[in-house]
Amino acid sequence: MMVDILGYIAATLTTTSFLPQAILTIRTRDTDALSLTMYSTFTLGVLCWLIYGIYLANNVIIVANAITLFLAMLILSFKVYNTFFKQ
Amino acid sequence: MMVDILGYIAATLTTTSFLPQAILTIRTRDTDALSLTMYSTFTLGVLCWLIYGIYLANNVIIVANAITLFLAMLILSFKVYNTFFKQ
Repeated sequence: MMVDILGYIAATLTTTSFLPQAILTIRTRDTDALSLTMYSTFTLGVLCWLIYGIYLANNVIIVANAITLFLAMLILSFKVYNTFFKQ
Repeated sequence: MMVDILGYIAATLTTTSFLPQAILTIRTRDTDALSLTMYSTFTLGVLCWLIYGIYLANNVIIVANAITLFLAMLILSFKVYNTFFKQ
Protein backbone atom coordinates (compact mmCIF):
# COMPACT_ATOMS: atom_id res chain seq x y z
CA MET A 1 0.00 0.00 0.00
CA MET A 2 2.74 2.39 1.12
CA VAL A 3 4.87 1.16 -1.78
CA ASP A 4 2.00 1.76 -4.25
CA ILE A 5 1.82 5.40 -3.14
CA LEU A 6 5.57 5.72 -3.78
CA GLY A 7 5.01 4.36 -7.30
CA TYR A 8 2.27 6.91 -7.93
CA ILE A 9 4.46 9.73 -6.64
CA ALA A 10 7.33 8.55 -8.86
CA ALA A 11 5.08 8.32 -11.94
CA THR A 12 3.53 11.74 -11.25
CA LEU A 13 6.94 13.41 -10.84
CA THR A 14 8.61 11.94 -13.94
CA THR A 15 5.49 12.58 -16.06
CA THR A 16 4.76 16.15 -14.97
CA SER A 17 8.46 17.09 -15.16
CA PHE A 18 8.14 17.41 -18.94
CA LEU A 19 5.47 20.11 -18.61
CA PRO A 20 7.87 22.94 -17.53
CA GLN A 21 10.28 21.84 -20.31
CA ALA A 22 7.47 21.99 -22.89
CA ILE A 23 6.37 25.42 -21.61
CA LEU A 24 9.98 26.73 -21.73
CA THR A 25 10.47 25.38 -25.27
CA ILE A 26 7.15 26.81 -26.55
CA ARG A 27 7.88 30.21 -24.97
CA THR A 28 11.52 30.61 -26.02
CA ARG A 29 11.55 28.34 -29.12
CA ASP A 30 15.18 27.70 -28.11
CA THR A 31 16.21 24.07 -28.56
CA ASP A 32 19.99 24.51 -28.96
CA ALA A 33 20.85 22.70 -25.71
CA LEU A 34 18.31 19.91 -26.32
CA SER A 35 19.64 16.68 -27.81
CA LEU A 36 17.76 15.53 -30.93
CA THR A 37 18.94 11.95 -30.32
CA MET A 38 17.66 12.11 -26.75
CA TYR A 39 14.17 13.30 -27.67
CA SER A 40 13.89 10.88 -30.63
CA THR A 41 14.94 7.90 -28.53
CA PHE A 42 12.91 9.01 -25.52
CA THR A 43 9.71 9.55 -27.56
CA LEU A 44 10.08 6.10 -29.14
CA GLY A 45 10.69 4.61 -25.69
CA VAL A 46 7.61 6.27 -24.20
CA LEU A 47 5.54 4.97 -27.13
CA CYS A 48 6.79 1.45 -26.29
CA TRP A 49 5.84 2.03 -22.61
CA LEU A 50 2.35 3.10 -23.72
CA ILE A 51 1.85 -0.04 -25.86
CA TYR A 52 3.26 -2.12 -22.97
CA GLY A 53 0.71 -0.52 -20.61
CA ILE A 54 -2.15 -1.20 -23.06
CA TYR A 55 -1.07 -4.88 -23.32
CA LEU A 56 -0.97 -5.17 -19.52
CA ALA A 57 -4.18 -3.11 -19.18
CA ASN A 58 -2.33 -1.10 -16.52
CA ASN A 59 -4.01 2.31 -16.24
CA VAL A 60 -1.12 3.98 -14.38
CA ILE A 61 1.36 3.05 -17.13
CA ILE A 62 -1.14 4.09 -19.85
CA VAL A 63 -2.06 7.50 -18.39
CA ALA A 64 1.50 8.45 -17.34
CA ASN A 65 2.97 7.54 -20.72
CA ALA A 66 0.16 9.06 -22.80
CA ILE A 67 0.79 12.43 -21.11
CA THR A 68 4.59 12.08 -21.38
CA LEU A 69 4.30 11.03 -25.05
CA PHE A 70 2.26 14.15 -25.86
CA LEU A 71 4.77 16.46 -24.11
CA ALA A 72 7.86 14.71 -25.54
CA MET A 73 6.45 14.84 -29.10
CA LEU A 74 5.74 18.55 -28.64
CA ILE A 75 9.34 19.27 -27.55
CA LEU A 76 10.72 16.97 -30.28
CA SER A 77 8.69 18.75 -32.97
CA PHE A 78 10.27 22.10 -32.01
CA LYS A 79 13.74 20.50 -32.09
CA VAL A 80 13.09 18.88 -35.51
CA TYR A 81 11.75 22.16 -36.90
CA ASN A 82 14.74 24.17 -35.61
CA THR A 83 17.24 21.55 -36.83
CA PHE A 84 15.92 20.81 -40.31
CA PHE A 85 13.44 23.47 -41.42
CA LYS A 86 14.40 26.77 -39.82
CA GLN A 87 15.92 29.25 -42.30
CA MET B 1 6.82 -13.21 -22.96
CA MET B 2 6.44 -11.02 -26.05
CA VAL B 3 5.08 -8.30 -23.78
CA ASP B 4 8.08 -8.62 -21.42
CA ILE B 5 10.43 -7.98 -24.35
CA LEU B 6 8.44 -4.82 -25.16
CA GLY B 7 8.89 -3.68 -21.56
CA TYR B 8 12.65 -4.26 -21.76
CA ILE B 9 12.84 -2.36 -25.07
CA ALA B 10 10.82 0.51 -23.55
CA ALA B 11 13.04 0.66 -20.44
CA THR B 12 16.24 0.50 -22.52
CA LEU B 13 15.10 3.31 -24.84
CA THR B 14 13.92 5.74 -22.15
CA THR B 15 17.01 5.05 -20.00
CA THR B 16 19.66 5.29 -22.72
CA SER B 17 18.01 8.39 -24.25
CA PHE B 18 19.57 10.53 -21.50
CA LEU B 19 23.10 9.49 -22.55
CA PRO B 20 23.23 11.65 -25.75
CA GLN B 21 21.73 14.55 -23.76
CA ALA B 22 24.40 14.17 -21.06
CA ILE B 23 27.15 13.98 -23.72
CA LEU B 24 25.79 17.11 -25.48
CA THR B 25 25.58 19.01 -22.19
CA ILE B 26 29.11 17.99 -21.10
CA ARG B 27 30.55 18.91 -24.51
CA THR B 28 28.82 22.25 -25.06
CA ARG B 29 28.14 23.21 -21.40
CA ASP B 30 25.04 24.94 -22.86
CA THR B 31 21.97 24.50 -20.69
CA ASP B 32 19.96 27.57 -21.78
CA ALA B 33 17.17 25.55 -23.40
CA LEU B 34 17.01 23.04 -20.52
CA SER B 35 14.33 23.60 -17.89
CA LEU B 36 15.67 23.66 -14.31
CA THR B 37 12.20 22.74 -13.01
CA MET B 38 12.07 19.79 -15.38
CA TYR B 39 15.42 18.33 -14.35
CA SER B 40 14.80 18.94 -10.63
CA THR B 41 11.37 17.27 -10.75
CA PHE B 42 12.57 14.49 -13.05
CA THR B 43 15.61 13.66 -10.88
CA LEU B 44 13.42 13.49 -7.76
CA GLY B 45 10.94 11.29 -9.65
CA VAL B 46 13.64 8.90 -10.83
CA LEU B 47 14.95 8.67 -7.24
CA CYS B 48 11.40 7.66 -6.16
CA TRP B 49 11.31 5.05 -8.97
CA LEU B 50 14.64 3.67 -7.73
CA ILE B 51 13.40 3.35 -4.12
CA TYR B 52 10.17 1.81 -5.48
CA GLY B 53 12.22 -0.75 -7.42
CA ILE B 54 14.31 -1.58 -4.34
CA TYR B 55 11.10 -2.12 -2.28
CA LEU B 56 9.70 -4.40 -5.00
CA ALA B 57 13.11 -6.08 -5.51
CA ASN B 58 12.54 -5.54 -9.25
CA ASN B 59 15.94 -5.54 -10.96
CA VAL B 60 14.70 -3.95 -14.21
CA ILE B 61 13.27 -0.93 -12.34
CA ILE B 62 16.42 -0.71 -10.17
CA VAL B 63 18.99 -0.87 -13.00
CA ALA B 64 17.05 1.39 -15.42
CA ASN B 65 16.48 4.08 -12.79
CA ALA B 66 19.97 3.91 -11.29
CA ILE B 67 21.43 4.68 -14.74
CA THR B 68 18.82 7.38 -15.45
CA LEU B 69 19.39 8.93 -12.01
CA PHE B 70 23.12 9.20 -12.64
CA LEU B 71 22.62 10.83 -16.06
CA ALA B 72 19.82 13.17 -14.88
CA MET B 73 21.89 14.34 -11.89
CA LEU B 74 24.83 15.01 -14.21
CA ILE B 75 22.69 17.18 -16.53
CA LEU B 76 21.00 18.87 -13.54
CA SER B 77 24.37 19.74 -11.98
CA PHE B 78 25.42 21.60 -15.16
CA LYS B 79 22.09 23.47 -15.18
CA VAL B 80 22.40 24.38 -11.48
CA TYR B 81 26.00 25.55 -11.99
CA ASN B 82 25.09 27.68 -15.03
CA THR B 83 22.02 29.14 -13.32
CA PHE B 84 23.39 29.98 -9.89
CA PHE B 85 27.20 29.92 -9.89
CA LYS B 86 28.42 30.94 -13.34
CA GLN B 87 29.91 34.45 -13.41
